[in-house]
Amino acid sequence: MENLDTLLQQMAFIHEVDKLKYITRKTRLFNSDRHENDAEHSWHLMVMALVLAQHANEPVDILKVLKMLLIHDLVEIDAGDTFLFDTVLNHTNTETERKAAERIFRLLPEAQAGEFIDVWEEFEAGQTPEARYAQAVDRLEPILQNISNGGGTWKEHSIPYEKVIQKTQHIQNGSAALWDFAKALIDRTAEAGILRKEPTEM
Amino acid sequence: MENLDTLLQQMAFIHEVDKLKYITRKTRLFNSDRHENDAEHSWHLMVMALVLAQHANEPVDILKVLKMLLIHDLVEIDAGDTFLFDTVLNHTNTETERKAAERIFRLLPEAQAGEFIDVWEEFEAGQTPEARYAQAVDRLEPILQNISNGGGTWKEHSIPYEKVIQKTQHIQNGSAALWDFAKALIDRTAEAGILRKEPTEM
Repeated sequence: MENLDTLLQQMAFIHEVDKLKYITRKTRLFNSDRHENDAEHSWHLMVMALVLAQHANEPVDILKVLKMLLIHDLVEIDAGDTFLFDTVLNHTNTETERKAAERIFRLLPEAQAGEFIDVWEEFEAGQTPEARYAQAVDRLEPILQNISNGGGTWKEHSIPYEKVIQKTQHIQNGSAALWDFAKALIDRTAEAGILRKEPTEM
Repeated sequence: MENLDTLLQQMAFIHEVDKLKYITRKTRLFNSDRHENDAEHSWHLMVMALVLAQHANEPVDILKVLKMLLIHDLVEIDAGDTFLFDTVLNHTNTETERKAAERIFRLLPEAQAGEFIDVWEEFEAGQTPEARYAQAVDRLEPILQNISNGGGTWKEHSIPYEKVIQKTQHIQNGSAALWDFAKALIDRTAEAGILRKEPTEM
C-alpha cells in the first residue's frame, strides 16, 4: 500500500493548506472594503501572471511561475502576512518563514516536499527570470487594488509617494513594461493629491 | 502604442475577474462554518491538481490542467454557482454560462480570448485526459470538505448516499486511484450513519 501512504501524506498537506484562506492581507479587493485573503490573492496573481506573460523582460517558463505563485504565501500560515510597508518586520526569508516552509512542505512525500521547497526558495531569492517576473506580479496587484480604492493602504497608513516608489520599483526587474504602467498610475495618483508627495525619515 | 492597448484590455480583464471572490459556494472550508468562495476554491483545486498528478489515469499536461482550473469558474461571475445536487438547474454548459464566457473572456485581446475560451470549452466537454483529471479534482474537493464537516452539504440538504455516489463517481474517469480513495471515505461516512443510505425518487 505504498500508494495509499503517499496519498495520505498528500491529503494531509491538502487539508493543512486550507488555512491560507484565513490569512488576511492589509489590501482590499478592487473597489471594495473587504480585505483579501492569501488564497484568493494567490489565485489572482496566477491569473495576472498568465495573462501578462508577454510583458516579462525575459521569456519565462510559465508553469514554473504558476507553481511559485500557487505556493509563495503558504509560509504565512505560520508566519502571518507582513505588510509591505512595515517598518520593523521584513517579509523576506525570515527564520520564521523558513521554519514554516519546513513544517508545511514536509507534510508531503519526500521528493515532492523537496521540489516545493526548491520552488519557494527560488521565488524568494528572486534571481531567475521566473522569480523576478512572479515577484513583479506580486507587487503589481496591491498597486492596482490601492488605486481602485482611492489610495487604499497607502492612504490608510499615510505612506508617502517616495516610499511607494521605493518599495514597488523592483517590478522593473521582472517587467519594464509593467513597471512603466504602474509608475504612471502611481504618479497620476500623486498628482491627484491622493498620495502625498513629501520626504519622510526612513 | 499597440502594447498599451493590449495592456489596457488585459487590465480590464484582471479587474473584472476580481468578482470571482464574491461568488459563494454551498460547501464550507475544512472543519469550518465559513462558506468557500470561487477564487479560493480555484486556488485549492490547483494545489490539489499539482500535488495529486501522479494519480491521474493518463499522463497529463499539468500546465493545461492548471489553466483549466484557474479559469473554470469565471463564468459564475454572471451565471452564479450551481449546487451539484440541484434538482432543477444543471451547471454544465448552460446558455447563461456560454454568454458569460463570451462577455468575460472577450475583455482580453482577441488571440488570448480565443485561447481562454478554448481551454474553458475543453474543460467543460471533459473529453481529454486533462479535462477528465481537472473535473475529478473539482469533484473531490467538496467530498473532503463535507467529510471534514461531519456530512456538510450532504447532511444539510438531506442528500442520500446513492445520490452522492451517482454525482461523484465520474471522478474515476480522471483518476481511478482518487475515486477508490473518495469512495472509501463516502462509504465510511454512510456506515457511521452520517450519510443516510436509502433510495429516493429522482
